[in-house]
Amino acid sequence: MFESCFAALREKAPIIHCINNYVTANDTANILLACGARPVMADDPEEAAEITSACAGLDINMGTPSRRRIESMFLAGARANELGHAVVLDPVGVGASRLRIETAARLTERIRFDVIRGNVSEIRALALGCGGEKGVDASAADIVTEGNLPRAAASAKAFSKRMRAVVVLTGAIDLVADGSVCYAVRNGRPEMGKVTGTGCQLSALVTAFAAANPERKLEAAAAAVCAMGLAGEIGAANLRPGEGNATLRNRIIDAVSTMDGKILAAGAKYEIL
Amino acid sequence: MFESCFAALREKAPIIHCINNYVTANDTANILLACGARPVMADDPEEAAEITSACAGLDINMGTPSRRRIESMFLAGARANELGHAVVLDPVGVGASRLRIETAARLTERIRFDVIRGNVSEIRALALGCGGEKGVDASAADIVTEGNLPRAAASAKAFSKRMRAVVVLTGAIDLVADGSVCYAVRNGRPEMGKVTGTGCQLSALVTAFAAANPERKLEAAAAAVCAMGLAGEIGAANLRPGEGNATLRNRIIDAVSTMDGKILAAGAKYEIL
Amino acid sequence: MFESCFAALREKAPIIHCINNYVTANDTANILLACGARPVMADDPEEAAEITSACAGLDINMGTPSRRRIESMFLAGARANELGHAVVLDPVGVGASRLRIETAARLTERIRFDVIRGNVSEIRALALGCGGEKGVDASAADIVTEGNLPRAAASAKAFSKRMRAVVVLTGAIDLVADGSVCYAVRNGRPEMGKVTGTGCQLSALVTAFAAANPERKLEAAAAAVCAMGLAGEIGAANLRPGEGNATLRNRIIDAVSTMDGKILAAGAKYEIL
Repeated sequence: MFESCFAALREKAPIIHCINNYVTANDTANILLACGARPVMADDPEEAAEITSACAGLDINMGTPSRRRIESMFLAGARANELGHAVVLDPVGVGASRLRIETAARLTERIRFDVIRGNVSEIRALALGCGGEKGVDASAADIVTEGNLPRAAASAKAFSKRMRAVVVLTGAIDLVADGSVCYAVRNGRPEMGKVTGTGCQLSALVTAFAAANPERKLEAAAAAVCAMGLAGEIGAANLRPGEGNATLRNRIIDAVSTMDGKILAAGAKYEIL
Repeated sequence: MFESCFAALREKAPIIHCINNYVTANDTANILLACGARPVMADDPEEAAEITSACAGLDINMGTPSRRRIESMFLAGARANELGHAVVLDPVGVGASRLRIETAARLTERIRFDVIRGNVSEIRALALGCGGEKGVDASAADIVTEGNLPRAAASAKAFSKRMRAVVVLTGAIDLVADGSVCYAVRNGRPEMGKVTGTGCQLSALVTAFAAANPERKLEAAAAAVCAMGLAGEIGAANLRPGEGNATLRNRIIDAVSTMDGKILAAGAKYEIL
Repeated sequence: MFESCFAALREKAPIIHCINNYVTANDTANILLACGARPVMADDPEEAAEITSACAGLDINMGTPSRRRIESMFLAGARANELGHAVVLDPVGVGASRLRIETAARLTERIRFDVIRGNVSEIRALALGCGGEKGVDASAADIVTEGNLPRAAASAKAFSKRMRAVVVLTGAIDLVADGSVCYAVRNGRPEMGKVTGTGCQLSALVTAFAAANPERKLEAAAAAVCAMGLAGEIGAANLRPGEGNATLRNRIIDAVSTMDGKILAAGAKYEIL
């Protein structure tokens, strides 16, 4: 199924509108091109809704926020919702400031997201900041280990239900959950944490996969998570002595660009809980 | 002649002021350094005109527009015109929003551009958005093929005459035209379309070549187009199995940095129409 | 001692808040990850002070300035001062506009910087723009050569005394001075000047080294300067035929990521004046 998800993406070449922080925008654009999508980067309120109209997916990335960019998130998000586009939220560093947590809370209230992707601390901050009670929701975002996997999967499903969005929680084991099914993905390499923007790139991939597979967004998100992790494995395997995180950054994007559905299906490591 | 154009660029090392979108600004700066120019990136109205005063060329790139950056385009453009600098417009995604088409229309009205560079859909949107009639001007921007080349060249010349600027229309065959002469360039590789910002980088190269060769801007623009295309060919030829668009991105800039006038002259593939 | 400076950095993994221009932000983030620090990029007044509170160091980079980003510099700088964080100023292109020189003057007046890093023309502009008399302070920023080294070191010490900050003056020979001691560093390669943002990256490294070694900031800054220069040497040595400035850019970051205290101590070339 991941194979056909990727094939659909390459065939449809969806245009993805990214409201992306300026730190990782270039890599995000290149990984979208690598997977077969077509990126459009635009973050101004005067054009955000219009730009998104011509696209198939919207990736809202909260890094380097500003009032101007935040306003664009709402305008583009509302329009994308009207048009039924795939809409993804990457609440970058959401726990780091009141501006971010309030923005995330308002966004998740007013925009319907198909997928929300974050790491443990982002999902935890989001769970708490969006009105969850501490003891309950924060457990959705404990670090996922082999030991607590069944409980973590149950929490991810519960959080997904509350947010009405597929939840992607990335870490050593990644979880991809809707209200009833949770993929636990074991692709990826710890070295990816030394490359800035791998999370942003994954969110863009998720948007592209979801835009090309609107009728199966959970599977599309899981396919994207496996693809990114597999790209990290391929990239890290190709590193030569003396090569480090800058080369890995290039190799990850390269690996996505030379990947196809067969390679993805063969390399994906997941179980369904 | 391309050989001496490149030699002049390396010798003069012109300072180029870029008002560039934040997605591709890093690559644009690095390709300017690669070709021998010196980039200055600045996009604030409080300093745009002052910054441009100390430069030899101005590259106005319309990607990720905002009111602030647009105001800087006008201020820097007016000053660059006063000082007789080389001024280039890259109307990135101009057809994608009213903000962009109106900005492009006002810019081409009030600023004198030496060169305007875009792909087929950008040049078509510009031709229509700047008051052209559909049947006439839009044909300036049909996809250029071997079959329609003479007609396309004639349209590019007509559009150049109307815009009073050298027009660079990039595609499988690139056209570089003033009112009476049109270069048809056959350098380049389709893989370049998978690297974000190759168009932005080309516009920066055009600015650098034109700034270093003010008395022969048509030839300078054609030389830049050949150099970029040749860099893409060299870059793609050096790709090893498993390498993709991220590595190609680096190889293109590398190829410009190791290119010289002789290599350019030997590799340039063009005819004059 | 450089060995233990680097070891402290890897062990403490300080979080560094960067208010960095958008051109080089990605490389700056990646080199911080490479050295063992954790970057946070944020430039909005609504969150700048809050973000910096959770960090150990603040890197204020003046490239691509805007009123919004400048306001953040003051807010974050004041908070970082209150909390005793390491604070570094990179006055990018400070001589190029009134906006920049006035900003630098106000910043150095109101914020206490641990380190100020610039090239010859930036330090010269800063020396003059911050009230220095021409004949005296400007000599702090003559190009440093073997011939004028003792005098240049004395000027750097004097300028450091006046600014109450460690001064890092980069060039063919780099100087790292406080009021009484000056390191003259002979690491580095001229090819680094062809890679955009190596100065920004160095300033980020200086911030990381200083944040991890608060009790010996002069040595920390000198260690960072040697590390960056050594990374340039390693990167340039690994270049293959046909590789240029884009590959060098990656190799420099790679070299930092694979460097350790021992490699740094063995490769550092400096004398103390």
